[in-house]
Amino acid sequence: MAFAILTEAIRATNNPTVMGLDVTLKQIPAHITKNKTVGEAIYEFNKGLIDCAYGLIPAVKPQSAFYEMYGLEGIEALHKTIKYAKAAGLYVILDVKRGDIGSTAEAYAEAYLNAESGIDCITVNPYLGINGVKPFMDKANETNKSLFVLIKTSNPSSADFQDLDCGGMPLYRKVAEKLVEWNGDDNVCGAVVGATYPHQLAELCDVMPSVFLLIPGYGAQGGNAEGLNVAAGRCIVNSSRGLIYAYAKHSDPVNYQKYTRQAIIEMKEDLREIV
Amino acid sequence: MAFAILTEAIRATNNPTVMGLDVTLKQIPAHITKNKTVGEAIYEFNKGLIDCAYGLIPAVKPQSAFYEMYGLEGIEALHKTIKYAKAAGLYVILDVKRGDIGSTAEAYAEAYLNAESGIDCITVNPYLGINGVKPFMDKANETNKSLFVLIKTSNPSSADFQDLDCGGMPLYRKVAEKLVEWNGDDNVCGAVVGATYPHQLAELCDVMPSVFLLIPGYGAQGGNAEGLNVAAGRCIVNSSRGLIYAYAKHSDPVNYQKYTRQAIIEMKEDLREIV
Repeated sequence: MAFAILTEAIRATNNPTVMGLDVTLKQIPAHITKNKTVGEAIYEFNKGLIDCAYGLIPAVKPQSAFYEMYGLEGIEALHKTIKYAKAAGLYVILDVKRGDIGSTAEAYAEAYLNAESGIDCITVNPYLGINGVKPFMDKANETNKSLFVLIKTSNPSSADFQDLDCGGMPLYRKVAEKLVEWNGDDNVCGAVVGATYPHQLAELCDVMPSVFLLIPGYGAQGGNAEGLNVAAGRCIVNSSRGLIYAYAKHSDPVNYQKYTRQAIIEMKEDLREIV
Repeated sequence: MAFAILTEAIRATNNPTVMGLDVTLKQIPAHITKNKTVGEAIYEFNKGLIDCAYGLIPAVKPQSAFYEMYGLEGIEALHKTIKYAKAAGLYVILDVKRGDIGSTAEAYAEAYLNAESGIDCITVNPYLGINGVKPFMDKANETNKSLFVLIKTSNPSSADFQDLDCGGMPLYRKVAEKLVEWNGDDNVCGAVVGATYPHQLAELCDVMPSVFLLIPGYGAQGGNAEGLNVAAGRCIVNSSRGLIYAYAKHSDPVNYQKYTRQAIIEMKEDLREIV
């Protein structure tokens, strides 16, 4: 069953937190970047983050953009990070937000959901309709992986199109209804719904009663635990900057692992109702 | 001015054709793949395609998915292809269809629209609204590059969401109206509208009177030159498989360059009205 592995990992850690690995070079502590290439520094920092989260979290979510930004060595650091996270027993969600037509979507599915990729799940953009999603569903079913389809994103301007009234209901709800239809019984598609929109989250939990949710927007973007109860038992909540740069609040980059671990424990406590 | 370079290149070649470099290993002629790594074979085939198109076309459009599919060596082949195309004087559109929230979109913009990337233009998905597009616009303005925003895609299921009625008009039209608003006077955002939907193309040309168009769906996907006249003077039409695998019709992979060149000349002739 899709998301069974993730659900089990959440139960085992008693924590529905996914740590977003959105790493930029300038925010990596200086003692790590010293005498290292960009790729080495990113990988070293990610290893440190994964190590200090040991036993506390079920999953990590590298954001592909932050690796693509550094070209080949960034992407190599991403591959190594994925491998390291897998070896640490973590569920790996790669945030790539891909979406394209048939044969191209097949190529993306092959790139990220092949059996050897180390990636358990990716994010997908639904703007192109079922032709842009089905190839990912097929590949995920074949390799026992999953995907999260963007429904209502956490950013302020998600309203520009996602909230447009489409015959009595907003577009995001139309997309959610389609997703339920596409899913059938296997629910290989999860959904992305931002913590920054608690009312819409509640509405979407009703529309998609059996769909697993990835909830971004907690922490740095302003979303909080209140309102997430509606998704209890079938969601994972992402925090990136709030966890990986927790040292910044204490102006103590050398001990970044201590602060990240502390921030994870606080987030776990905050989310204890929704495991 | 955005798209001035591309417009000039179209006039210089008298051809509004962009050759899509959607290369899969199994379709590369055997005499090229022999004794080569995947990355070497892809790059060699692309070089051959670019060489045989010499003087005939203004632009190429590598589809990122087909390179990402082969991991690091695929991406390295993509970088080398971009560099080779630039050196050949071609305008390079990288089809990545990225789209994400603020800081992540900035990272993607940095990855693909930085001054040294060799890429002149990328494709962007608008589902996240202005937060997901503005960082690309800002970077493009800074580096004198451009982007194409997906409006009405060429695939059959583009109707799933893009055609939904949003208060008396389809979603694609709402997106087009927003794009005009975002563009202001500089028109840094072009638009993707499929050749497979000639009526919608005509409608969208009216809605976006000053916007440059990337038109996919010609050739293998079934779109033809009729109906493209409405976009004359401000569009570029993509063909991928119809050009790069033209040898397949003749079962003569060894002479693939001859057939690709011939197919480009036929397409140029077919599109002569819309330069």
